[in-house]
Amino acid sequence: MQREQTTALSAALNPPSLAAAINAKGFSHAAGFRIVAAEPGRAEVALARREDLVQFFGHFHGGVITALADQAAGIAVTSGLPAGRIGVTVEIKVNFLEPADGSELVARAKTLKMSGSIGVATVEVFSKNEASETLCAFCTATMRALDLPPEFR
Amino acid sequence: MQREQTTALSAALNPPSLAAAINAKGFSHAAGFRIVAAEPGRAEVALARREDLVQFFGHFHGGVITALADQAAGIAVTSGLPAGRIGVTVEIKVNFLEPADGSELVARAKTLKMSGSIGVATVEVFSKNEASETLCAFCTATMRALDLPPEFR
Amino acid sequence: MQREQTTALSAALNPPSLAAAINAKGFSHAAGFRIVAAEPGRAEVALARREDLVQFFGHFHGGVITALADQAAGIAVTSGLPAGRIGVTVEIKVNFLEPADGSELVARAKTLKMSGSIGVATVEVFSKNEASETLCAFCTATMRALDLPPEFR
Amino acid sequence: MQREQTTALSAALNPPSLAAAINAKGFSHAAGFRIVAAEPGRAEVALARREDLVQFFGHFHGGVITALADQAAGIAVTSGLPAGRIGVTVEIKVNFLEPADGSELVARAKTLKMSGSIGVATVEVFSKNEASETLCAFCTATMRALDLPPEFR
Repeated sequence: MQREQTTALSAALNPPSLAAAINAKGFSHAAGFRIVAAEPGRAEVALARREDLVQFFGHFHGGVITALADQAAGIAVTSGLPAGRIGVTVEIKVNFLEPADGSELVARAKTLKMSGSIGVATVEVFSKNEASETLCAFCTATMRALDLPPEFR
Repeated sequence: MQREQTTALSAALNPPSLAAAINAKGFSHAAGFRIVAAEPGRAEVALARREDLVQFFGHFHGGVITALADQAAGIAVTSGLPAGRIGVTVEIKVNFLEPADGSELVARAKTLKMSGSIGVATVEVFSKNEASETLCAFCTATMRALDLPPEFR
Repeated sequence: MQREQTTALSAALNPPSLAAAINAKGFSHAAGFRIVAAEPGRAEVALARREDLVQFFGHFHGGVITALADQAAGIAVTSGLPAGRIGVTVEIKVNFLEPADGSELVARAKTLKMSGSIGVATVEVFSKNEASETLCAFCTATMRALDLPPEFR
Repeated sequence: MQREQTTALSAALNPPSLAAAINAKGFSHAAGFRIVAAEPGRAEVALARREDLVQFFGHFHGGVITALADQAAGIAVTSGLPAGRIGVTVEIKVNFLEPADGSELVARAKTLKMSGSIGVATVEVFSKNEASETLCAFCTATMRALDLPPEFR
């Protein structure tokens, strides 16, 4: 990740434990999402191929690619919010560029803009095979910042 | 489904077995996607809530919602193509409107337009609880028609 | 417009003059946008073809179609807000389905959802020629409600 | 424009006159779109502020921003196609990030992917004031390559 391009979004970082907590539940946990990096305005999340994550042709399912991109966008945006706040997805759009036929996916998100309660992030998703990686999907997500309900703090 | 509004897209229907085959593999099978209806230009696909399909707050994960919408769009478009052709997703966009906190999701897709090799479908996704259902997401997907590779026929 | 399908969004209507004021300035005025109908959660805006509104092939320019859809979405959402509030566009997505080669465009917007400060509208844009009309574009817009600055009230 | 990052899309360049021709007609001509740069997979198009191009608050109208982004995407994609082919817009999505309140807009497009007849481009749109520029919109466009009809060659 290119740290020098990171927009300074917020001095007040969320506890890194929030990103871990987001990732440790439900679908992201069951699918095996792995946080590679998280900092204000940036996140990288990876996922190894499994037979229960593919579509008809044996490539990663578009919904799984979207889930990974969404998770990376959410962590990038949330990492830039004050403690006690979380970004939830208002809408997401994904272009599928190449078959996601690698052994691993990596989603790299960066926040384009955070102002008021609205954040926008772009995510590049790469399909990896050993040393090479191919841009297989490009995503833009609009997020809304919420106060974390007390039971989740 | 409102059959009277169905645009006559193609007299040549895909074998219904193609929709079943699409759904019987990988993520859609593992998650438990269930085809409720499929006809040229229309499809309805349902999914029961499970703990491995939710996000941080315990609602259906946005990526799972997108996967279901994508599947319904793909079946609606593919059902309108000549035998031996299949629709693959070029891009998808989803607005999340309400928390998907029901016990079941239902995605209802219809083809807006199919011309040349490009099809566009909209999908309404409802979160269901007993008798009531709430529109929780709205999706538009652009599909491209391909010849099914011989090994999938 | 099908009034019976209109979601009751807000009892407090904006002064109808706001929709007229939005439309009477800048590009929408110069291009000749015409408000056909506006009520809470619904709007219809029309535009006659002119040589300065087309693209390379002589059809309405995609940006002009988007501008008309955006205006209709903004008026549908704003009409459902309390007086003194206005909807501004967070993001917009448009699928172009058919050449917009008619003598007039009509954009029909409806609000899918308005909650908190976020509204989502879909817009169907039709290309008209005498009696017939063709769905030429489909749009989804996400809006954010703002207080009107004092100088605009 | 960062030439070193340009993907080599095609050795066969369209005559540069096609980009000029696209821009010299209809809305883009009337609004005053100005091609700053065009090469295979890249384009930059600028537009000076005028009172007939703004919205209610006096900033560039969202539809005008979209038109400029669309034009830049079309020129980037078309410049990478073999002679006699042109890219037309299948769908476009735009996030509006900041008020476009500058004296000029600049749209910078790059092709992410061109394969078969489908191309995808991203466009950054900047609002400029003297020396400074602000990213005011981010766009993704899906294009389809067509043979230019004989009357346009």
